[in-house]
This record gives sequence, C-alpha cells and structure tokens, in this order.
Amino acid sequence: MSTEALLLDAALRTWNANLDRASKLFEGLSEEHLQQEIAPGKNRLIYLWGHLTAVNDALLPLWGFGPRLHPELDEVFIKHPDRAKPTPSAAELKQNWQEINAALNPAIFKLTPAEWTDRHTAVSPEDFLREPHRNRFNVLLSRTNHLAYHLGQAIGRS
Amino acid sequence: MSTEALLLDAALRTWNANLDRASKLFEGLSEEHLQQEIAPGKNRLIYLWGHLTAVNDALLPLWGFGPRLHPELDEVFIKHPDRAKPTPSAAELKQNWQEINAALNPAIFKLTPAEWTDRHTAVSPEDFLREPHRNRFNVLLSRTNHLAYHLGQAIGRS
Repeated sequence: MSTEALLLDAALRTWNANLDRASKLFEGLSEEHLQQEIAPGKNRLIYLWGHLTAVNDALLPLWGFGPRLHPELDEVFIKHPDRAKPTPSAAELKQNWQEINAALNPAIFKLTPAEWTDRHTAVSPEDFLREPHRNRFNVLLSRTNHLAYHLGQAIGRS
Repeated sequence: MSTEALLLDAALRTWNANLDRASKLFEGLSEEHLQQEIAPGKNRLIYLWGHLTAVNDALLPLWGFGPRLHPELDEVFIKHPDRAKPTPSAAELKQNWQEINAALNPAIFKLTPAEWTDRHTAVSPEDFLREPHRNRFNVLLSRTNHLAYHLGQAIGRS
C-alpha cells in the first residue's frame, strides 16, 4: 500500500470502530433505557443517538454521495434541544441509523485518497483555494471524534 | 501540498484541537472541582486528567521520540482504578501535562507521512509485515479519539 493509502486506511478503521461501538451501544438499549439522561437535567440517550444519526445523514450530501435520507431528523435532534420535540421510537431510529450507515459505508470505501483531500460541498471553490484543509478527510476525522465524544457521554450512564 | 501531506495535516489539526480542549478544561479547574466524580461512583476528574497525561507520556517511546518523562504516573492512573492510590496535586499534574505535551508536539510535526505509516515500537518488524496498519498514524488517530471520549465524559460534569 502507498503512504497515502495507509493513512486513509487508518482513518477508515477508526471511523468504523467508533460506528460499530455506537451501534452496539444504542441498538442494545430498550425504549425505557433510551429515555434515561446522561446526567441529571442533561440529554437523554435517545437524543444522543438521534443527534448522531442526523449528523451521519448530513454527511451524504456533504461528501457528495447524494441527497439526505432523513432530513426530518434535524428538526428534533439538531435544531432543538432535547425534549423540545417528540422523538421517534427506538425501532424507528434504529431503522434510520442502519439505513444511513448502509448508504455511507460502501461510498466511503470507494473514494481515493485524492478525493478525500478534495473539498466538501459546504465550502466554495474560492474558499477552498485559501483553506485547503476544508476537505472531506478533515470532516471524516472530526465526525469520528464527535462520535467518540458522545460515546464518552453515553457510556457509564447506559 | 501533496495528498499525503494533506491527510497528515488534517490528523494533526484534530489531535491539537482535542489537546487544546483538554488543556482548557482541566487546567481551568480548581483542586476541589477536580475531586468531583463524572457520575456517582465513577472516576474523578483528576483521575481522567492523570490518565490522559500518562497515556500521552507513553507516546514518547511508542513513537520513538525518547524515554518517558513521568512513568510514575502509570502506577496511579493506568495500573490501578481511581482512589486505589494517592493522586498528585492539580499543580503537579498540570506541570506534568504541559511538560509531556511540550515534548510531544514539536516532535510530531517533524515526522514525514512515510514515517507516520512506519511501525511503532510496540510492534515487531515481523508482525508489522503481516499487520502494516499497526503504524504510528493509527496510534495518533486512536489516541485522538481516546481524548475525545474522555472529554465527553468530563464535560457536563466539570
């Protein structure tokens, strides 16, 4: 493998490891368990799961893979804090989570290292000339970290 | 920048962003505050900070940068659970944290992409032939995630 392929491989492994960990955690919790808060007065576990689902869904257009599958999740899990809107059931959320990840994961393995360092769709070609770090790969790493961060919040309380 | 330099740049940015976030969080807490638990019966904040400090210290030999600066931290923060051993003071831990990160951070910016995809010192040359993903870069990404995970645990309770 070339150096760039090895660098990319490590990042995709870390992404997948976190995604698997999140799936194992959230998919294994009951409807009641998902209603628990991570700390008194803080987000419920179902809110964290829905939030991560909405963020993954937004990666589809951001990385140029296609339109969002569940943009309606943003209303509940991105634009408003927990408890402001009714949340979907655990079964529904699980279906969304699996559907979105099944759309993401074949696509990310098809991109070449050069495509990963190309701009994502939220940055204009002009801005990208000045800020070449605003590329797909940077998003992959920050979303992997975002997953790990919320896993840290969820675990111990789940 | 070459593709491999761009991939590496993104990873170093993410590492530094997490490290800064951890410094801002832990260095800003009082001695009393650091004694608080992240949840009832769970680790105290000082334990998380000491744990992250010990893990960073271990990166020095793992990446081939030199000997550890504070191997004594392992006894308290790696080998035993929280409260099994007396913890250093916040001032002492802050000094260790800063000293270790000051040793790590110039060194990581000197490695080339090819050196990042080379083996780390905990894997033998023979094993590395079979498992080329056991490289320095893989450790960089997993330690960045480890930081994000514990930041998630700490924030909200700090």
